[in-house]
Amino acid sequence: MNPQETRRVRVGVIGASGYGGAELVRLLHHHPGVELTYLGAHSQTAPDVAQVYPHLRGLGMALEPYHADVVAERCEAAFVALPSGVSGKVAAELAGRGLRTIDLSGDLRLPADVYRQWYAHDPVDPAVQAQAVYGLTEWNRHALPTAQLVANPGCYATAVLLALLPLAAAGWLPERGVVVDAQSGVSGAGRTPTQSAHLGELYENFYPYKVGRHQHTPEIEQGLAVYTPVRLLLTTQLLPAVRGIYAVSYVPLPQPVGLDEVRARFAAQYAKEPFVDLYGPGDIPQLKHVRGSNKVALGLALDERTGVLQVFSALDNLVKGAAGQAVQNFNVMYGWPETTALSALALYP
Amino acid sequence: MNPQETRRVRVGVIGASGYGGAELVRLLHHHPGVELTYLGAHSQTAPDVAQVYPHLRGLGMALEPYHADVVAERCEAAFVALPSGVSGKVAAELAGRGLRTIDLSGDLRLPADVYRQWYAHDPVDPAVQAQAVYGLTEWNRHALPTAQLVANPGCYATAVLLALLPLAAAGWLPERGVVVDAQSGVSGAGRTPTQSAHLGELYENFYPYKVGRHQHTPEIEQGLAVYTPVRLLLTTQLLPAVRGIYAVSYVPLPQPVGLDEVRARFAAQYAKEPFVDLYGPGDIPQLKHVRGSNKVALGLALDERTGVLQVFSALDNLVKGAAGQAVQNFNVMYGWPETTALSALALYP
Amino acid sequence: MNPQETRRVRVGVIGASGYGGAELVRLLHHHPGVELTYLGAHSQTAPDVAQVYPHLRGLGMALEPYHADVVAERCEAAFVALPSGVSGKVAAELAGRGLRTIDLSGDLRLPADVYRQWYAHDPVDPAVQAQAVYGLTEWNRHALPTAQLVANPGCYATAVLLALLPLAAAGWLPERGVVVDAQSGVSGAGRTPTQSAHLGELYENFYPYKVGRHQHTPEIEQGLAVYTPVRLLLTTQLLPAVRGIYAVSYVPLPQPVGLDEVRARFAAQYAKEPFVDLYGPGDIPQLKHVRGSNKVALGLALDERTGVLQVFSALDNLVKGAAGQAVQNFNVMYGWPETTALSALALYP
Amino acid sequence: MNPQETRRVRVGVIGASGYGGAELVRLLHHHPGVELTYLGAHSQTAPDVAQVYPHLRGLGMALEPYHADVVAERCEAAFVALPSGVSGKVAAELAGRGLRTIDLSGDLRLPADVYRQWYAHDPVDPAVQAQAVYGLTEWNRHALPTAQLVANPGCYATAVLLALLPLAAAGWLPERGVVVDAQSGVSGAGRTPTQSAHLGELYENFYPYKVGRHQHTPEIEQGLAVYTPVRLLLTTQLLPAVRGIYAVSYVPLPQPVGLDEVRARFAAQYAKEPFVDLYGPGDIPQLKHVRGSNKVALGLALDERTGVLQVFSALDNLVKGAAGQAVQNFNVMYGWPETTALSALALYP
Repeated sequence: MNPQETRRVRVGVIGASGYGGAELVRLLHHHPGVELTYLGAHSQTAPDVAQVYPHLRGLGMALEPYHADVVAERCEAAFVALPSGVSGKVAAELAGRGLRTIDLSGDLRLPADVYRQWYAHDPVDPAVQAQAVYGLTEWNRHALPTAQLVANPGCYATAVLLALLPLAAAGWLPERGVVVDAQSGVSGAGRTPTQSAHLGELYENFYPYKVGRHQHTPEIEQGLAVYTPVRLLLTTQLLPAVRGIYAVSYVPLPQPVGLDEVRARFAAQYAKEPFVDLYGPGDIPQLKHVRGSNKVALGLALDERTGVLQVFSALDNLVKGAAGQAVQNFNVMYGWPETTALSALALYP
Repeated sequence: MNPQETRRVRVGVIGASGYGGAELVRLLHHHPGVELTYLGAHSQTAPDVAQVYPHLRGLGMALEPYHADVVAERCEAAFVALPSGVSGKVAAELAGRGLRTIDLSGDLRLPADVYRQWYAHDPVDPAVQAQAVYGLTEWNRHALPTAQLVANPGCYATAVLLALLPLAAAGWLPERGVVVDAQSGVSGAGRTPTQSAHLGELYENFYPYKVGRHQHTPEIEQGLAVYTPVRLLLTTQLLPAVRGIYAVSYVPLPQPVGLDEVRARFAAQYAKEPFVDLYGPGDIPQLKHVRGSNKVALGLALDERTGVLQVFSALDNLVKGAAGQAVQNFNVMYGWPETTALSALALYP
Repeated sequence: MNPQETRRVRVGVIGASGYGGAELVRLLHHHPGVELTYLGAHSQTAPDVAQVYPHLRGLGMALEPYHADVVAERCEAAFVALPSGVSGKVAAELAGRGLRTIDLSGDLRLPADVYRQWYAHDPVDPAVQAQAVYGLTEWNRHALPTAQLVANPGCYATAVLLALLPLAAAGWLPERGVVVDAQSGVSGAGRTPTQSAHLGELYENFYPYKVGRHQHTPEIEQGLAVYTPVRLLLTTQLLPAVRGIYAVSYVPLPQPVGLDEVRARFAAQYAKEPFVDLYGPGDIPQLKHVRGSNKVALGLALDERTGVLQVFSALDNLVKGAAGQAVQNFNVMYGWPETTALSALALYP
Repeated sequence: MNPQETRRVRVGVIGASGYGGAELVRLLHHHPGVELTYLGAHSQTAPDVAQVYPHLRGLGMALEPYHADVVAERCEAAFVALPSGVSGKVAAELAGRGLRTIDLSGDLRLPADVYRQWYAHDPVDPAVQAQAVYGLTEWNRHALPTAQLVANPGCYATAVLLALLPLAAAGWLPERGVVVDAQSGVSGAGRTPTQSAHLGELYENFYPYKVGRHQHTPEIEQGLAVYTPVRLLLTTQLLPAVRGIYAVSYVPLPQPVGLDEVRARFAAQYAKEPFVDLYGPGDIPQLKHVRGSNKVALGLALDERTGVLQVFSALDNLVKGAAGQAVQNFNVMYGWPETTALSALALYP
């Protein structure tokens, strides 16, 4: 029925030694339109990727050093999940070689001046960045079929933008006074051993990090700015858990907008979205409801005493917050049904 | 290519409010040969199963009270995952109504006298029990295509039998002296709230339970008895984790059998098994390598100082230890490729 | 040196089968001024408390049913840590019998009309409630030496009041616009098995509960109202952890108050407090820093982009949030140094 | 009453940046006979130890580089908790300077030839090693009062020796056939970030490590050899937990020794031991019962079907398995009551 179904796109994953890359492999493994032809890594290589990720035993693929020539020869499309500061350059290089490329880092999401302010790296060529399509699928779907280079959104940014964009679009988001309190499982910080990821340190722990300077702040504000200028405070915290983003967005709701109106707006906005699950009155999303799935769960509550609307959003940072959304974008780019390879239910418990 | 592919079998899950039942739903959801037509529960009912399991939102199925008539009318096959003492009777009833039935409890695995000794319930009709096929797929595959009633193996029993049967078949398993030290995540004990499952009690904890009287002991001995009589000690312990069985089987290896010989035997035995993953020399399975997958990971080590062989086996108790193996059995019963609906990679990390 | 040191006060703990009660036993066990003479429980009794709490093996005390006569005969002072709705009545009864009594529940903290609105129980006699001293030690120390009945503060309330009272006292707390986002370990909900406390459910999970209706909201507002009327939003969330409260209080800071001024105010306020640990610029409290100790860790950050002050507070809900603060109050009531039995360092890691 | 009580011993902790060292600080902090005068580290130094361990805020001590001269000048006694290969040399050096020294590493526990075989380091001077007293307090108490240098036992060795020595002393331990299956929390491997300690890797995981080559094997065999030669198999496994050792020792009991006889022997042996807690018939120790305390919990079960005795032992690897036992040894060395600074109850939950 679909021309793409007649053959598989040859796909490479660069950064497969990281958690985001391994998740891409997990999802793409069963994609009927994908032939995985290359796994590359930033720092580790191995004759068999299973030496690095034993759960991938039997895949039979090597973890290779990155060479643009090799990737260009072997792949038509690439997912790049390298550390910020490296990833965008590699993605740009591969896009320049003609590969349709999805970059999962933050390198291509922000204009150079903003990037420079929030990231500790040099920005990529502004012309390249400007060309990258921001891959928040639900809100930018139309731009994907023709995209050569996609900037896949950040995990926090995905959770918060899906929570706030319906309000912004409705004109109900105040410019000041929005606070977002969010938390992430440790996998968001990658697989590299660090003291903060040590189980001895993180078990029974919880605390904010990058206070006042998390780089997803400008990404969220930029996403909202399409509709309305907002300056918000994003606090990011580390959960003693592996997967997941849970964000509570506190929005002083302008009078006389009520909860029913808000709910109707969200319902209309996301009615046909396969991966946005709007919970009903009184139902609160839980992080675990979406673990391993590509869903984002949204909940709404209005505190009558203070007039503050709370929007709850939960997603799996490695799926909808990274690899899953990247595959979702790939599906749109190549004309596959958007749920292809992404319809697995959450792993519960 | 396959007659079954032309239409879907109407399938019911009885016990869908438990962890095993919910896992069946997760796996069967995408089975191309299955139409889920009934979800039943032991104690809970709900207009929408999502009220009990919000990760199943969107499935659109009710959790219904159990009535044999209803199930018989609506289903051709049934998975029964009710508590021991109830499950076997329901399974027997449905099989009697003509449904091909897989029972995940321990009720149909043992003859009445042994059952009575190890379980605190009355056994089912011995004639029915005798008719049930023991569904350790890798070792009993031949009996499944014609089975009307299947006794799906226990989680510990699956881990230990897959570890010891190659030795038993080779005549290398001593009648006395085998010790099995095994541990399970808390999901093995079900979803019902108990003090031992309370996170406050289990976090940072570890301890043996049912010491000397775990009901999988006779199930393992019975499985081995096909080849050789064995009386072994099984110690079961509770891990501060959700999913998984990890068993270490300690076997005093008879002279002059060496590790290479043992390894060759395991390799030959399991060479074509899609779900048995034999690790190479020096590689030790980890519980997390198989989480969410239907694989069992096996490892071998011989302690030269003491002559004791260690067989390590790891599996996800809800998948290969319960729902996954049940689906695997279903696939063999209905002529589907054995990996159908079971080929997902582990969720890692 | 101290008259109280010459003999031990005979003390009873009512509610010793709960987590708060067990924590009281742990702390009081080594108190040089305390002789534990009675352990009572709400629903469980046992000839040896170790049957209920094996970590108390060797204590050699029974867990007895509650009889006011027995307690009055055997004790001079009592800690009551029973469920809300029962606890306050028992505390009132014992105080009426002449025991100096500290109630750890919420029953005595609020006037009847407010209590009725936020709790699902009948309030205690308003005259009794009015007589109870609110035991937020650092702010109400003066009233304790003569107190007959103490209402020990709630865990969230302690964390938030210690964070906000310096601002309220300085006149820097706006009446509207304060948001408090807080999380608790599961021990805060007690030891009774529930589905939400099941490790299978809570591991890898996180979510808000009692949204918009947590009963510590009016307790916090009442505490602040001494200085200034405030209506704030408190969101409480469940952490996959056992112990701890972590609260982030978001305060739109009135112009032209700056962070240095705020910090100076906090420093002055808490300079001599043994259990309030104000972190320096850039240092962020972590939940685990205070586990098992009676300390509350406070941190301050001002987000220049939005003008929002963040006050971070971390404490162990069973120590400073319950049993520890109760002992601290006891120390003040009886003239002991405030750190008596409370000077243990955190258990880290 | 005790001459030592009249003044405090000046004590240094070398290795205070590690978990064992931090635990020493926690315990010694309140020791009435100790004045902490020096904290040293292997790789990290800091003007305030709180920069490395914020839970030690307020202690007001620096973390200093190690210089023997400084330590010798400032301290009379030293605890050395450095990595194996370094620790023993430092301990030997300080003992040579006249400090009474307790080494928590494995460097002084084994003769040079055995050490060389099981450790990857050069052994210390055999004459020095021979002089070190093995500090398994309960079994070697008599040698401590005159000891200049103490080799503090390993965590697994402590758990297993306390479990097996009563059997060895009774002549009930067979030379062959004993299997010990043990597990440890991650703190046993130290604070240094590693991939295996990463929460993303260890959460929901469990697996054996150092299979057949754990260095506590010869330490256990050496301890038992005082009574009887034994060659046993020790399997060590990593738990998804922070603290704790749980060992199950499987002992084929010689005929006609029965469980009552064994229990009586244990009871007699440990009747007066403050830190050995022998559980009664049917009671099984749990890891969490001893967390944060210096106790070892022992349980006994005889499997009648196989004649195998199971001895369960649980301890906190950082307390009784390291720092606590070191302080216990210190107490004996200096004539303090053995429970001094060690009588805290477990932190539960």
